[in-house]
Amino acid sequence: MKQDKNMPAGAKMSRTIDWDDSDSSILMVDQTLLPGEYKIIKCKTIADVCEAILNLRIRGAPALGVCGAFAVALSATLSSAKTVEGLLKDMTVAGETIKKTRPTAINLSWGVDRVLSIAEEEGYDPKLVRDIALHEAKKMADEDVELNKKIGKHGAKLLKDGDVVLTHCNAGKMACVDWGTALGVIRSAVSDGKKITVVACETRPLNQGSRITCWELLEDKIPVHLITDSAAGFFMANGSVTKVIVGADRITQGAVFNKIGTYSLSVLAKEHDIPFYVAAPVSTFDPAGFDEAVPIEMRPEDEIRYIGKAKELNAPVGVSIKNPAFDMTPMENVSALITEKGVFCPPILIDEIIID
Amino acid sequence: MKQDKNMPAGAKMSRTIDWDDSDSSILMVDQTLLPGEYKIIKCKTIADVCEAILNLRIRGAPALGVCGAFAVALSATLSSAKTVEGLLKDMTVAGETIKKTRPTAINLSWGVDRVLSIAEEEGYDPKLVRDIALHEAKKMADEDVELNKKIGKHGAKLLKDGDVVLTHCNAGKMACVDWGTALGVIRSAVSDGKKITVVACETRPLNQGSRITCWELLEDKIPVHLITDSAAGFFMANGSVTKVIVGADRITQGAVFNKIGTYSLSVLAKEHDIPFYVAAPVSTFDPAGFDEAVPIEMRPEDEIRYIGKAKELNAPVGVSIKNPAFDMTPMENVSALITEKGVFCPPILIDEIIID
Repeated sequence: MKQDKNMPAGAKMSRTIDWDDSDSSILMVDQTLLPGEYKIIKCKTIADVCEAILNLRIRGAPALGVCGAFAVALSATLSSAKTVEGLLKDMTVAGETIKKTRPTAINLSWGVDRVLSIAEEEGYDPKLVRDIALHEAKKMADEDVELNKKIGKHGAKLLKDGDVVLTHCNAGKMACVDWGTALGVIRSAVSDGKKITVVACETRPLNQGSRITCWELLEDKIPVHLITDSAAGFFMANGSVTKVIVGADRITQGAVFNKIGTYSLSVLAKEHDIPFYVAAPVSTFDPAGFDEAVPIEMRPEDEIRYIGKAKELNAPVGVSIKNPAFDMTPMENVSALITEKGVFCPPILIDEIIID
Repeated sequence: MKQDKNMPAGAKMSRTIDWDDSDSSILMVDQTLLPGEYKIIKCKTIADVCEAILNLRIRGAPALGVCGAFAVALSATLSSAKTVEGLLKDMTVAGETIKKTRPTAINLSWGVDRVLSIAEEEGYDPKLVRDIALHEAKKMADEDVELNKKIGKHGAKLLKDGDVVLTHCNAGKMACVDWGTALGVIRSAVSDGKKITVVACETRPLNQGSRITCWELLEDKIPVHLITDSAAGFFMANGSVTKVIVGADRITQGAVFNKIGTYSLSVLAKEHDIPFYVAAPVSTFDPAGFDEAVPIEMRPEDEIRYIGKAKELNAPVGVSIKNPAFDMTPMENVSALITEKGVFCPPILIDEIIID
């Protein structure tokens, strides 16, 4: 994985992730370097993609879904199989490898499975399998942008002029292909002419809120104040926050799984009678998922033990560290789910929203 | 302010802050360097003391109280005044300068005022003023250790064998002269033979939990798990936490002022029916204080904008950052106040505890 040499220095992609037809590779923004550096990297192998996902160069449930789809398409172009069966087998192996990188966000599996499934159904020769896989992945990337615009349109109706919206982690353009889910709702409200101010939680330990959300909003000239995660209660109690909007990595019938800290924010929002919204595409839904069985990814201790790229000691070398990446917010703490199919207030049956 | 040359390399002070009779200076552990380095620094001027307080080389309400007391004694030794009036004036000016460094912790004012007041009352010649000031400051340091042991003794009764106690920031030995308030309660319970496990919140943005609390507990071989601040809800919801104990920077009739994030923890503890205890000496009480009027220190934006000593960019250069250092926990969220005078369950009249 290297910096893409074809992009002129300083150029920005219009999308967070894209396919490069010139050499059949995946292009993505390396989000670990923001806000200091905007760098486009190129994944030419499945190992490159896995490395990028594991190290959060790309992250965010919808972006991971499209990344999974592109990865399967990439595996098809890389495979030397001469038969449909051989090719599909190589793609399935690649898909399984990709799926294992991060267990909580369901969109990754969804992206992989959707491309595999259509390639299996419709690909009657190896060339067609490759073409269909790539076509489907590109379609999913386009769809993601459309879905986010729809989520934004529905969600914007919930925001009023002057709202101060607290958000956590990054559920913006950089978590999707473009526009964003939680930040997409804010962008749509701003496009409608409403004045919205954002309060962004830092989101330890990897600081997606301070590094990525603040960077995105500054690029778009949307007013934002950064706070530490533990200051959210302070700003809710003093009346500064009027709404909370977060994204989601998986939504089951009973709960929303999202970045660690989301649950605490939902409890605080409830305490202060502040609406708590979750913005996510229906591909985030896992109607068969049993809340307690959803795997919560435990990330490496060293993400907290050391700080910054200089790896300064933030805790004693020998101390035990627990680093769950996600938590579970019970649906009763959610005021509404904002999806491309509309706004739904719990209690709801999520499988009915999918079918609808 | 320099490293104390009289201490052999690797030596540790038995106390967090102390007076050096050999050259009439204040010795303290530079807590900004923990856990990577244990360094004893020497303050020879009031400017040195102010710098150390402002940059949190010394912090924690009880330690600041004793630091304020030693600073007034230091100003007396530095003053060239030949009259009691002149000397007291110099000491008062120094005291006011010290008090302004940090507005929220009331102990700083309390430490300064106690030394000034006894020096004024009993010092009828300049030498006596100097002697009394130093004697009183040393007495306060000794008393702090005794008080913390008493707090520990009373509080330990609330902990049972097997408890998992979540704490925030550092209310340990390094926040006091020795033993600690919240961690003092835990140390006392462990001394009584109870097995206690601590969950330490990182405490952004200056990471006193990860850097100092974890270091202290590892030194004492008390089991501890470090988590990010926003993971507290996760571990309360999954039943891992049985008690919460924090310290305090100021306690009014209606609220506890403590490190930012304390309020959020109190709301989460209430949500999960987990006892929420505040351990602090009575010198933290401010019975005349009106909750809404207590000044909340807003710390520099750059504490969040940059990360680590290498000053890596953690947020865009231009983003607005709000960095309150403390928050207000209403007394109804507090299960009990643990003081040297015993354990008190709200509703209580704090001025009656002081007089008692």
